[in-house]
Amino acid sequence: MRRPWEDRWVKITGKVGLTAALTVAIWAALPGTAGAADGTPTLEELSFVLNSFALLVWGALVMWMCAGFTMLEAGSVRTKNASMICLKNVGIYSIAALAFYFVGYNLMYVDVDSVIGSFSLLFDPSEAEVALIGGDESVIADVLEPGRSGIATWLFQMLFVATTASIVSGAMLERTKLWAFWAFTLILTAFIYPTVGAWIWGGGWLDQLGFEDFAGGTVVHVVGGAAALAGVIVVGPRRRKFRLDGTAKPTPPSNVLVVTLGVLILWLGWFGFNAGSQGGLAAARDVATMATILVNTNLAAASGMLAAVACSRPVFGRLGLAPSLNGALAGLVSVTAAPAFADQYWSVVIGAIAGVLCTLATWLLERIKLDDVVGAVPVHLVGGAWGTLAAVVTSGADLAAQAVGLVSALGFVFVVSFVVWRVIDAAFGIRISSQVEFVGQDVAEMGIEANPEFVLVPEDREGYGPTSFVRDR
Amino acid sequence: MRRPWEDRWVKITGKVGLTAALTVAIWAALPGTAGAADGTPTLEELSFVLNSFALLVWGALVMWMCAGFTMLEAGSVRTKNASMICLKNVGIYSIAALAFYFVGYNLMYVDVDSVIGSFSLLFDPSEAEVALIGGDESVIADVLEPGRSGIATWLFQMLFVATTASIVSGAMLERTKLWAFWAFTLILTAFIYPTVGAWIWGGGWLDQLGFEDFAGGTVVHVVGGAAALAGVIVVGPRRRKFRLDGTAKPTPPSNVLVVTLGVLILWLGWFGFNAGSQGGLAAARDVATMATILVNTNLAAASGMLAAVACSRPVFGRLGLAPSLNGALAGLVSVTAAPAFADQYWSVVIGAIAGVLCTLATWLLERIKLDDVVGAVPVHLVGGAWGTLAAVVTSGADLAAQAVGLVSALGFVFVVSFVVWRVIDAAFGIRISSQVEFVGQDVAEMGIEANPEFVLVPEDREGYGPTSFVRDR
Amino acid sequence: MRRPWEDRWVKITGKVGLTAALTVAIWAALPGTAGAADGTPTLEELSFVLNSFALLVWGALVMWMCAGFTMLEAGSVRTKNASMICLKNVGIYSIAALAFYFVGYNLMYVDVDSVIGSFSLLFDPSEAEVALIGGDESVIADVLEPGRSGIATWLFQMLFVATTASIVSGAMLERTKLWAFWAFTLILTAFIYPTVGAWIWGGGWLDQLGFEDFAGGTVVHVVGGAAALAGVIVVGPRRRKFRLDGTAKPTPPSNVLVVTLGVLILWLGWFGFNAGSQGGLAAARDVATMATILVNTNLAAASGMLAAVACSRPVFGRLGLAPSLNGALAGLVSVTAAPAFADQYWSVVIGAIAGVLCTLATWLLERIKLDDVVGAVPVHLVGGAWGTLAAVVTSGADLAAQAVGLVSALGFVFVVSFVVWRVIDAAFGIRISSQVEFVGQDVAEMGIEANPEFVLVPEDREGYGPTSFVRDR
Repeated sequence: MRRPWEDRWVKITGKVGLTAALTVAIWAALPGTAGAADGTPTLEELSFVLNSFALLVWGALVMWMCAGFTMLEAGSVRTKNASMICLKNVGIYSIAALAFYFVGYNLMYVDVDSVIGSFSLLFDPSEAEVALIGGDESVIADVLEPGRSGIATWLFQMLFVATTASIVSGAMLERTKLWAFWAFTLILTAFIYPTVGAWIWGGGWLDQLGFEDFAGGTVVHVVGGAAALAGVIVVGPRRRKFRLDGTAKPTPPSNVLVVTLGVLILWLGWFGFNAGSQGGLAAARDVATMATILVNTNLAAASGMLAAVACSRPVFGRLGLAPSLNGALAGLVSVTAAPAFADQYWSVVIGAIAGVLCTLATWLLERIKLDDVVGAVPVHLVGGAWGTLAAVVTSGADLAAQAVGLVSALGFVFVVSFVVWRVIDAAFGIRISSQVEFVGQDVAEMGIEANPEFVLVPEDREGYGPTSFVRDR
Repeated sequence: MRRPWEDRWVKITGKVGLTAALTVAIWAALPGTAGAADGTPTLEELSFVLNSFALLVWGALVMWMCAGFTMLEAGSVRTKNASMICLKNVGIYSIAALAFYFVGYNLMYVDVDSVIGSFSLLFDPSEAEVALIGGDESVIADVLEPGRSGIATWLFQMLFVATTASIVSGAMLERTKLWAFWAFTLILTAFIYPTVGAWIWGGGWLDQLGFEDFAGGTVVHVVGGAAALAGVIVVGPRRRKFRLDGTAKPTPPSNVLVVTLGVLILWLGWFGFNAGSQGGLAAARDVATMATILVNTNLAAASGMLAAVACSRPVFGRLGLAPSLNGALAGLVSVTAAPAFADQYWSVVIGAIAGVLCTLATWLLERIKLDDVVGAVPVHLVGGAWGTLAAVVTSGADLAAQAVGLVSALGFVFVVSFVVWRVIDAAFGIRISSQVEFVGQDVAEMGIEANPEFVLVPEDREGYGPTSFVRDR
Repeated sequence: MRRPWEDRWVKITGKVGLTAALTVAIWAALPGTAGAADGTPTLEELSFVLNSFALLVWGALVMWMCAGFTMLEAGSVRTKNASMICLKNVGIYSIAALAFYFVGYNLMYVDVDSVIGSFSLLFDPSEAEVALIGGDESVIADVLEPGRSGIATWLFQMLFVATTASIVSGAMLERTKLWAFWAFTLILTAFIYPTVGAWIWGGGWLDQLGFEDFAGGTVVHVVGGAAALAGVIVVGPRRRKFRLDGTAKPTPPSNVLVVTLGVLILWLGWFGFNAGSQGGLAAARDVATMATILVNTNLAAASGMLAAVACSRPVFGRLGLAPSLNGALAGLVSVTAAPAFADQYWSVVIGAIAGVLCTLATWLLERIKLDDVVGAVPVHLVGGAWGTLAAVVTSGADLAAQAVGLVSALGFVFVVSFVVWRVIDAAFGIRISSQVEFVGQDVAEMGIEANPEFVLVPEDREGYGPTSFVRDR
């Protein structure tokens, strides 16, 4: 017969044993703790990984847009200036990356006091993340806490910046000095872009006002377009672009295949640009939103292209290739401000309107004698402004906030850029000499030709190529 | 001394306490519930995320194939037609996206009754997924249930469709009207392709029969190739392609670098095409299968290319660049029907045979005076048919089912496409005038030239370029 | 009144019930077991999936580098040799894939005995992984154990190999026979590269010595550069590259846009090259490291490019496009040996030094009359050697180990490559005839021209193009 203490002992040990067993079992079942012990990640860690990885993958496609802008621009100009554009655009990308690393990021995101962030040198990754990379697993809770890697976030931002400078570049081709443009790029990416960025994405006054810009309809495209407009005005049109009778000389692309390739590179890059702006991936809502972003992006581009094709002949008198491709780009720009809505048919509507507006703006710019070589203003400024306002319909953004934000960003960037261009002009001159413009920047500034073995059509005359009579309106 | 009720109380409270503690612990340990509470995703949710994300990433590479087809085609034709091809192909991609969005998807996948799906306007994402994107987390169980995002699935399908139309395009270059081709694209992507797709992937009669087509060896490549063959027959050969003595005039690419770039873009895009068709990622089996798909895809392309190089000289009398590159494409097509087998050496065998078959088919087509500019029929129809049958060996598909499916799809698409081309021809004419063919579509239809600054070799003679004597057989 | 046995029964059943309930609850909570039951993956499985998926996605970008090398090379040479380069490079990629599949991988990774691995035919995936792909879920524990898919790992390696051969190719353009180069590629990718790879990555003697090479600064770039140097010496310079007075004739790119595109493709591809070399993704440390790898890669390229721009004029007397772009590539090469450090400003320093060293090496090579067409030796050998040593600073690598490894790899590959080139030369001849060099390899070896419709500038004279006077120093 068992004695009471035996009985209690059994009970106690039973409970203890059960509790111990359960504790072990639960410990093993706890994803976090068990994971940390044997190298298996926790759910929180996987969430962090996915959120960060999406920024890396989509960021790679954003980097690829550098090739898109370069091909689009180099194919659009006369061959004698194409090499310089190649060097210029790779340089823009490089300057933008370094400028944003050295000061831009901190101005845009660190301690933003509603107008501007902190002026301090070098992007400074969190100590915890640096320690973790170095192998110190004890800091992992601090690293996981923000939900995604600060370094990945910064990388995505760095890859973004260069696009803004590339937009400006496209408008001012064939008569702007290489070094002047690089100087402007430095100021744009180190100061101007980060300022507007701080207002909208850094928690500044426009963000507080409720202004919405998902992937940069204003931050990237209106900013780039406004700086381009200022630059176009300051530098003036290419020689003989506008005839004495006020009409514009057609300057079709010198290399249509390369232009088309550039547009398709941008189209692909935009997938990364817009999807990556979701910022997270690890929730079902994130990935579903990302999918609808890509659907909207693709539909708006397709719709913008076809709308531009449709109004190309009425507006320009013929089926225009460059305006049609620009319609696709305008469609892409137009959904960038708010691509995350679920009623996907709106992207067809918004893209189509963007295609039409872009075509009309292209026509208008020539009328008012502004020489925008690749159509950066119609595509990015007009498309971006339209998209920023259209977000009122698709994403329930506040109309007043959108209008205030749009006007502020556009006005600020236009005025500052205008002043900066003037200052650079006064200091060094931004316009190449008439002789260099005649000879071409490739030979004059680099002693090189884009296609030295191909015999070129003599160029200095009305239009060029054997079919110029067809192109003249 | 404790009384019995005390003793029981102790036992009860002990159990309750233990149970409560355990419940809390388990609650915390339960990935799903805990996750939902604090924002950490559940395992089920991460699985959904990964399955969907793979479709987005690989889908982006499928979009990129548009650039591949465009470069391949525009570089293959005479320069005077290259711009039109650029516009045409971007237009094809746009039309395909919208047509599939408006009606194609529903015909292919919604309520398929063994022959065709539902005719209803606009792709309609699930209410639950739309609600989740809008922020309603209460529907998450419904969203997660299918295992991947319906919108991501649809996006991948939309990006797929354009490839089929691009295949047709490549065969009929240099003599088909732009608008006629766009009209055919609309019908192909809205109706013809979705019909065969419904049979095979939508759960229709071929699927029920056991027909297997993993990534579109038949649905995309045989369909595209059959429509191309019908188009080639209806539109007839380019003027002077075949001489009075029955021999074919060589028409080598006008821009070899661009053609090569196009082929390499397609090679990369195929990674997305085949890997994305796995449909899921979140299981170890999924990702291991995806890896072997990419191994097989790459090996088949490499093997097809080298096989085509090897038989190029015996068949064509010289080492042919275009046939060799087409060998790589034929290799890629040939594993598309069933790339998910584990015996990877079979992909070397299948790719090599595809390279040889493609080369022989190219030779044969010229003999029977069918003018297929880029070799769409040898690459896609022959390669796709071979791959559909080869799946019997690699994936254990049923030979009878594969044969029935292949013949049905090929026959249906060929006949319907033939009729549609005839109808478009009767209504609007699909063939450009002899004068336009002489001048080139770029100038005639668009008032533009692909390379207006490069002096071109006078063209209207036997062969072209200073070395045509070498090229003539 | 309850009897003792009843009381015990209650206790026992209570415990059993509780235990059962808890067991069920824990079972449900256990991610692994519950997951396996209903199709939801376990944490371990998701970790496996992510580690493997990263290799697939970044591997796709590595494949894309084939297009980068092809465009860079084909645009750099005279037009009369460009088509051959296109065929050659696609062939190199194909041969490398097959050679590595047939013997290279096993030599590099299977049973490495400090010097070389196993000579056995065909990459042999693990039985468990093959079984899993075939649907046998019972082997899943064996598949998950290594933490990532062996097939995915192998795929990434296969896509890597071709880059090494492409590096060699770039140095020896315009005078090396196609078949000779393909023969060398076969030996390089089947034997030479795998040998050095076995030493460093396969667990061989350099690995045991503590030599560090994260992503191939030595394994890929020094190996490729050393083989290129040997080839350049054996094949000799292009005819008339060096004048009788000892100066070098400038041979600028014939197609600058294509060269620039190639460089940007490589830049993007490098993201995959370096990030994929992290090998894992599923831990927070992995993805944070991957992010910093991409930051370092991008900053080093930007910095290398700008440094090369800065010293281009002092060294070459003019702003050189090709040297500037090569500066970006040298920057990319220089961080490849150790891109995973957290002090990101070092990448700016290392990249800048690489840009300067590359420029100086380019100048030096011409002085000592070595004709390296695209600058493969300055970019890859010099950049790779510098980066291998710089890892001492950034990643705490051992200087002695790095120096020994660098010298061993460089010396071994140079000597073996020199002998192999000599043997191929003695057996078949590696140098094209003077007549073929005059006519161009495109016409002579393939009966084709890269741009048959463009009128070319007569070529056989000092410099070419109307502005050669500017280019001559």
